Amino acid sequence: MHDNQRIVLASRPQGAATAENFQLQTLPSPDLQDGQVRVRHHFLSLDPYMRGRMNEGKSYAAPQPLGEVMIGGTVGEVVESHSSRFAVGDQVVGMGGWQLYSVVDAEQPGALRKVDTRHVPLSHYLGAVGMPGVTGWHGLVRIIEPQAGQTVVVSAASGAVGSAVGVLAKVRGCRVVGIAGGSDKCAYVTNELGFDDCIDYRLHDSAASLSKALKLACPQGIDGYFENVGGMLLDAVMLRMNAFGRIAVCGMIAGYDGQPMPMAHPALILVQRLKVQGFIVSEHMQDWPPALKELGELVGSGRFRPRESVAQGLAAAPEAFLGLLKGRNFGKQLVRLI
Amino acid sequence: MHDNQRIVLASRPQGAATAENFQLQTLPSPDLQDGQVRVRHHFLSLDPYMRGRMNEGKSYAAPQPLGEVMIGGTVGEVVESHSSRFAVGDQVVGMGGWQLYSVVDAEQPGALRKVDTRHVPLSHYLGAVGMPGVTGWHGLVRIIEPQAGQTVVVSAASGAVGSAVGVLAKVRGCRVVGIAGGSDKCAYVTNELGFDDCIDYRLHDSAASLSKALKLACPQGIDGYFENVGGMLLDAVMLRMNAFGRIAVCGMIAGYDGQPMPMAHPALILVQRLKVQGFIVSEHMQDWPPALKELGELVGSGRFRPRESVAQGLAAAPEAFLGLLKGRNFGKQLVRLI
Repeated sequence: MHDNQRIVLASRPQGAATAENFQLQTLPSPDLQDGQVRVRHHFLSLDPYMRGRMNEGKSYAAPQPLGEVMIGGTVGEVVESHSSRFAVGDQVVGMGGWQLYSVVDAEQPGALRKVDTRHVPLSHYLGAVGMPGVTGWHGLVRIIEPQAGQTVVVSAASGAVGSAVGVLAKVRGCRVVGIAGGSDKCAYVTNELGFDDCIDYRLHDSAASLSKALKLACPQGIDGYFENVGGMLLDAVMLRMNAFGRIAVCGMIAGYDGQPMPMAHPALILVQRLKVQGFIVSEHMQDWPPALKELGELVGSGRFRPRESVAQGLAAAPEAFLGLLKGRNFGKQLVRLI
Repeated sequence: MHDNQRIVLASRPQGAATAENFQLQTLPSPDLQDGQVRVRHHFLSLDPYMRGRMNEGKSYAAPQPLGEVMIGGTVGEVVESHSSRFAVGDQVVGMGGWQLYSVVDAEQPGALRKVDTRHVPLSHYLGAVGMPGVTGWHGLVRIIEPQAGQTVVVSAASGAVGSAVGVLAKVRGCRVVGIAGGSDKCAYVTNELGFDDCIDYRLHDSAASLSKALKLACPQGIDGYFENVGGMLLDAVMLRMNAFGRIAVCGMIAGYDGQPMPMAHPALILVQRLKVQGFIVSEHMQDWPPALKELGELVGSGRFRPRESVAQGLAAAPEAFLGLLKGRNFGKQLVRLI
């Protein structure tokens, strides 16, 4: 009935990912079975974790299979339903992948979730009130465990995850300092998101230089660090960590293309009695309800105004994704599919 | 009345510590004030943390002052008392420093603790049933939190801390694998301490090689790692850590002389959702009573037979300490002062 367009992983990257790793295909969408619904996607989410899935080999998730539709979060509308749980017209969030339509077993718990767009725009359920927002919430609340008056630093601060971390930390009474790439992003982080300060890492060519800027921005040292980037940023922040500091490791996008990215001073973990902990939000499902509730209220009230970069059309997804890996997006990277 | 011999820090090391950094002095021991006792030291403890104190600059403790007696744990006997809390003849453990006698304000809580030598030899209160044992207990029980059936790896496994970690982990039903330097130490670790296996790191010239040996010794991967060494050992172990593994960072003796010692693959913290946490046992006083109780029972029952390297006489302390930093000791390094 509907022709579907989709993007599959055509080949695995050798070093940096390229547009040639992806292939756009058109093929008929299958008929529905009992219990299934068809979702027309309005937005596709592009996220750094996808780069990890493109590699072969051991990681926290199975690799993205070659020749199959790229994994990805989607929001959209039910356009056909063979399930009593969803009606045509329902707005839903799910993992529909890089394609225009998905067929979902609607009875499977968690496969599809109805959302309310009266106060929160549909697209934000892929960002601030979705996986990236919950990611920020878990790392901040469960690992950094910030106390009022402490200083929290966030890398990739203008991004979907980082912006949520910063707003949530401000609500908890912290001094919050972002690290972002470029003066536009830094201005957004302080003016729109309400961070106390933001450092443009592009003005620094070494961890020592960035660390000096952090010293000025964090006169009381750093108690919590939410890491999205790794490399030089991690080294610089570690030099300013206070005793008993906590580092939540959410991402290390600087190393996703496979180049070596050592940590310069691991002895600081001992000297400052740091806790450095990695996590993946999908392994902490119990945190989703409280996180989505708080984030939904912050967005609904206007306290948190997430920014989005929106590419138009499925064919634009690969270039938008490659730009995301290079930090060219500004806020949550989406692809509009309608 | 008594002449006292003591060793002071004469100069700070430039790179590796040397015997010239220390100076032996003889001077009269002062008269006692009210509330003070004089302790004749039987044994002085030598521990890696002392190397950190010899450096200037920011660390978790104030630097050892130049020209003052080197800090150090001691066990001995009260030989003169102006305190109602201690009688002549009491056997006590304290922080008497690198000297034959110390004068202690006995009313100060925690300054001096009476010990019972009916089941535990006096010297072990500086090792297995003292600070090193409690250090192992805290890192294992509070940070690694081992479950029966999990695999725990310990570096410097024949040392005072490492041997306690291994015995405590075996008691908790873990598979325990040590890393030590030399076949004698490895034989002691497996035959006397009851570790399941021990790897001689001197047979490996790279993290990759050591990691292969760990793969054989840890067929189910590694769930907990107690780090005393750092450098190549940490890199090798990280390559074998299981998801949700815990690394307790107690020491990084490989880097104490100041050479750079990066962590090769910090991205594994994310990929495997590791927790890497540093600690100092003196900041966890609430753990001392349960730890000393368990360790005292293990030593008293003969289940845990700690090994000691004993240097004779205060003048031998500097060379014994420098040997400790190079791994020349075998078990707990002590200096006999009587």
